[in-house]
Amino acid sequence: MLTLKTRISLLLLIGLLLYGFAWATPSAPLSAEDSDPRKLGWMTGSPPAADKLVMQPDSNFFSFPKLRWTVCHIRELMPTKQVSRGIGPVIPLPYKYDAGIDILSFLPLGASEPMTWAESLAENYTDGMLIIHKGKIVYERYFGCLNEDGKHAAMSMTKSMTGLLAEILVVEGVLDEQAKAASIVPELASSAFGSATVRQVMDMTTALDYSEDYADPQADIWAYSKAANPLPKPLGYSGPNGYFEYLQTVKQQGEHGEKFGYKTINTDALGWIISRITGKNLAELFSERIWSHLGAEQDAYLTVDAKGTAFAGGGLSAGLRDLGRIGLLLLNDGVINGTRLFPKEVVTRIRAGGDKNAFAKAGYKTLPGGSYRSMWWVFHNQHGSYAARGVHGQTIYIDPTAEMVIVRFASYPSAKNAKIDPTSLPAYQAVAEYLLKK
Amino acid sequence: MLTLKTRISLLLLIGLLLYGFAWATPSAPLSAEDSDPRKLGWMTGSPPAADKLVMQPDSNFFSFPKLRWTVCHIRELMPTKQVSRGIGPVIPLPYKYDAGIDILSFLPLGASEPMTWAESLAENYTDGMLIIHKGKIVYERYFGCLNEDGKHAAMSMTKSMTGLLAEILVVEGVLDEQAKAASIVPELASSAFGSATVRQVMDMTTALDYSEDYADPQADIWAYSKAANPLPKPLGYSGPNGYFEYLQTVKQQGEHGEKFGYKTINTDALGWIISRITGKNLAELFSERIWSHLGAEQDAYLTVDAKGTAFAGGGLSAGLRDLGRIGLLLLNDGVINGTRLFPKEVVTRIRAGGDKNAFAKAGYKTLPGGSYRSMWWVFHNQHGSYAARGVHGQTIYIDPTAEMVIVRFASYPSAKNAKIDPTSLPAYQAVAEYLLKK
Repeated sequence: MLTLKTRISLLLLIGLLLYGFAWATPSAPLSAEDSDPRKLGWMTGSPPAADKLVMQPDSNFFSFPKLRWTVCHIRELMPTKQVSRGIGPVIPLPYKYDAGIDILSFLPLGASEPMTWAESLAENYTDGMLIIHKGKIVYERYFGCLNEDGKHAAMSMTKSMTGLLAEILVVEGVLDEQAKAASIVPELASSAFGSATVRQVMDMTTALDYSEDYADPQADIWAYSKAANPLPKPLGYSGPNGYFEYLQTVKQQGEHGEKFGYKTINTDALGWIISRITGKNLAELFSERIWSHLGAEQDAYLTVDAKGTAFAGGGLSAGLRDLGRIGLLLLNDGVINGTRLFPKEVVTRIRAGGDKNAFAKAGYKTLPGGSYRSMWWVFHNQHGSYAARGVHGQTIYIDPTAEMVIVRFASYPSAKNAKIDPTSLPAYQAVAEYLLKK
Repeated sequence: MLTLKTRISLLLLIGLLLYGFAWATPSAPLSAEDSDPRKLGWMTGSPPAADKLVMQPDSNFFSFPKLRWTVCHIRELMPTKQVSRGIGPVIPLPYKYDAGIDILSFLPLGASEPMTWAESLAENYTDGMLIIHKGKIVYERYFGCLNEDGKHAAMSMTKSMTGLLAEILVVEGVLDEQAKAASIVPELASSAFGSATVRQVMDMTTALDYSEDYADPQADIWAYSKAANPLPKPLGYSGPNGYFEYLQTVKQQGEHGEKFGYKTINTDALGWIISRITGKNLAELFSERIWSHLGAEQDAYLTVDAKGTAFAGGGLSAGLRDLGRIGLLLLNDGVINGTRLFPKEVVTRIRAGGDKNAFAKAGYKTLPGGSYRSMWWVFHNQHGSYAARGVHGQTIYIDPTAEMVIVRFASYPSAKNAKIDPTSLPAYQAVAEYLLKK
């Protein structure tokens, strides 16, 4: 029997961890229209009525349909750290709307009937959709809790930002990708990470005795959740406090470098490595190296643990067009608004992808032939596309051939991207082929 | 014997309430230089060492000298709600530096030796100082935890923002200042607020059976603190949850309208009134009516309780120059960047001040002849000056005669403005007289 405090911790941390939740989806969840948080009235009223409250610990704020409100309001639920845009001018993105996109048709993976792009938006519980082609916004939509000056949880796309920073430091010679993690963070020496190379951590080919099976009450994810919880620890709690203490407890299982294993704790280990080597916390580093140079419209933010450590694996919230700027920065090999932020080689290395054999062993059915490199998903398709991805449908999808960036925020009822990819990846490809002909 | 959870709640809420704490100041606190949070190294390192941590519940983060770090990092300690600047362009404030200000001399209240302006900065543990004269920045300094793209707790200056919004609604005819509070918020009917007029709430001349004596463990402030705490309530807690539930429990003592009584709960009642009447929470309303029209450099934010209710009485954090824009907006009778945000009458009514007799009964020794109107402090001096004020030295000081706005953020060891005014108010007057001659 869990205590109330423990239950509170678990519920809050489901939110905090923001990834991989094997969701207990009802057989027919509410449609996007019927689950619109504005329609359901979450958190409206002064104060909100009891059945409209999302914030209380017993309300399971990260479950669908409350999830659809929560994804725009993470900072109202827990402590966060600003990723400053600086105080310079906003540099607007130009527009060239394309009315043809909504009526594009594509065949969802495994389907026999085609679907239009417009139909795919509701199908995927889209909160924000942005398409940039040759530097201009050709398509932009907001739904649910999001609007153009709002922010949305990026979830595991946060990993790709952490990976980008690490790759920059590698190319600059500040971070040795072949160094053992323990040589940079000695506290990791007796953990599984200690004997892994920085590159193995970056590509998630570490061999970790760590389970993210949410159906198992003994799974490691629960101990991780408790450690990461920024709220005061429950009475009698004697486990690790914060991401960094938890990481030191992870044991090795198998040999590093053999298999891709998507485990968020790799990113938090990477966050520690780059924080230690730069002397900066992740929010400051991300602002200094990237966010403050984008001409961004908004600050972003990261959730933190009880020691102020930013959640490198999933804590980012940001605006839709600002993540479009991130996509453009990658598409243009490190240049944005005419300024080079990092060497072209950073993008070249990400786009080259990781170990396909190691990736294949993980069995991602919607990503055949793909790989994972520096916390980016590389499709190895004919367009050379690659992406940041987060559960519930988050993506920054970059197609260098079509000179296209797609950013989608979503609050799909299930956390499994394998359910969302069939109506997403072929749609992105259809838009890319359409734009290529423009 | 308090439980750990209760102690945690109390400690956190000392921070949350941000005002009026009768501080247990050591006889000789560290100097501004010696207590500089950069020098003391709070929250540096990955992770911070145990003796550098400010965030944990046992560290009493709102006590000096940790206070000097905390005032710039409120959002890292608790949930907050954005006050959006919008996504329009930043409208820079022009500069015309004046090197003569630092060497200005003034006589502190009750002192026999003069002090220079420059000396007063460290004396008052100043974190940020901005002086605007005739629309141009003539003086700007940052110390301690603050820099030009950082934010600082505004503490009770938040009240003046809430009061400004209320006064706007009164002048627009949306809010009837003579209406009983209960006629707008029926839930307040059986509380002390129910029979008070909106104007009495706005001017804090309500008669409330409410003690803010922090030395008394039975004082009402502690029940208020527990109610307002955004963290999950301790096991067995059965008291009110959130600002609005607490306000309903406040009983009347005496007659409304007779005496000024500086009690933060008035502002939270006013926040409820204007949220109910506009259908918007305070953060949205403040953004829509004020913050998004300033050409502000940064978003601001408000702390929230466990129902998402913004702390109208003290929850604001903002940038120094952005509060300078607020001062300019008032100085220019409701106009900023050439746009009128509200009728001139709003400022006229605030500047006219409140009931001097009612104010005199409260016995503020450093504010003789003053009054309090719509949550602004009115000095009734020859320059017609008025101010937003918050504990530990926060101020927006507006001198219409000198066409001057001063904004100060500070982290003075004691919360008592009566200790800070002697080296502040005469200094402001000296600058005003100097600038009048320019």
